[in-house]
Amino acid sequence: MPDSRSVEQLQLALQRLPGVGPKSAQRMAFYLLERDREGAFSISEAIKSALAKVNHCQRCNNFSESDLCTICASQRRDSTLLCIAETPADVEAIEQASAFAGMYFVLMGHLSPLDGIGPEQLGISQMLDLIQSGAINEVILATNLTLEGEATADYIADLLHQQGVSVTRLARGVPVGGELEYMDAGTLNQAFSDRREI
Amino acid sequence: MPDSRSVEQLQLALQRLPGVGPKSAQRMAFYLLERDREGAFSISEAIKSALAKVNHCQRCNNFSESDLCTICASQRRDSTLLCIAETPADVEAIEQASAFAGMYFVLMGHLSPLDGIGPEQLGISQMLDLIQSGAINEVILATNLTLEGEATADYIADLLHQQGVSVTRLARGVPVGGELEYMDAGTLNQAFSDRREI
Repeated sequence: MPDSRSVEQLQLALQRLPGVGPKSAQRMAFYLLERDREGAFSISEAIKSALAKVNHCQRCNNFSESDLCTICASQRRDSTLLCIAETPADVEAIEQASAFAGMYFVLMGHLSPLDGIGPEQLGISQMLDLIQSGAINEVILATNLTLEGEATADYIADLLHQQGVSVTRLARGVPVGGELEYMDAGTLNQAFSDRREI
Repeated sequence: MPDSRSVEQLQLALQRLPGVGPKSAQRMAFYLLERDREGAFSISEAIKSALAKVNHCQRCNNFSESDLCTICASQRRDSTLLCIAETPADVEAIEQASAFAGMYFVLMGHLSPLDGIGPEQLGISQMLDLIQSGAINEVILATNLTLEGEATADYIADLLHQQGVSVTRLARGVPVGGELEYMDAGTLNQAFSDRREI
């Protein structure tokens, strides 16, 4: 929109959102200004508030508004188990599934040398400090089963084997509800080689 | 993220953007807080600034920071031609193509009774006032060639025929660079029936 510098700047700013290109940004700017100014205001305020309040839990590195997140501050979690996850969304999914009742460490990403994300950016030394200082018996690597997630898990496993901690990885196989004819070869191979007696 | 109310509120707010569901909002919130806090700040500020400054041109209804947008304020446009467009983005596309040197009226949408968008929401009476007050010879209906755009164009054409103004519609046909084998039947039919002698 050649006529309004503010609209132009809004479009440019919205393009900083992941997955938003020039056309989507244009559509969003139009929508916010023409159809939902109240929503626009709430987005602006929510961002400002989150920037001011949200920081990292000093123990598990997850997003938190206080020094310790509620999970780390809880007395009801099993502090001998540590689950390493990539993102807060992964922690949320695991919590919602009630799949785990131990503690977490959140990497906030995975190893990605091309994007400049190495062990330092993932807080690996903070994670090692946590493992060395605590009474942790088992570390469960719950990074994604993607190429990057596997590489990150392998890297951490190597580090932890030197520390003499028991290290486990999530089971690979056919997801619940999955149909064999649609599974990729890697998943099927894994499901066969890890088959269990019933 | 169960632990941070601000992150949760940010996710909810981001879902007010068009085309953004819970998963995208979660990804956006994570990205903004973890990878681009500066970008997050610029989005918040750009929204606030646009909300404060951007209003509508009193003549053409396009976004504008002053009473008249630059097109309406210009002395170099042909004020006998009026182009009716759906959105500021459409006006921008027409301007960038240098396809038209007259004046505009921007509906800021199309007729959509199910969404509660009728003639009143599109500023049709403001448009009629403009046409009656000016020395306009021809009104070019440049709404989209979609079902809704066509319905809107038909509705406006009916109104204007009562006013005795000359009304035209954009040509329909095969787009430049288009390959016939990929054209839909409607476009091909139109291209044949509107064929021109060369």
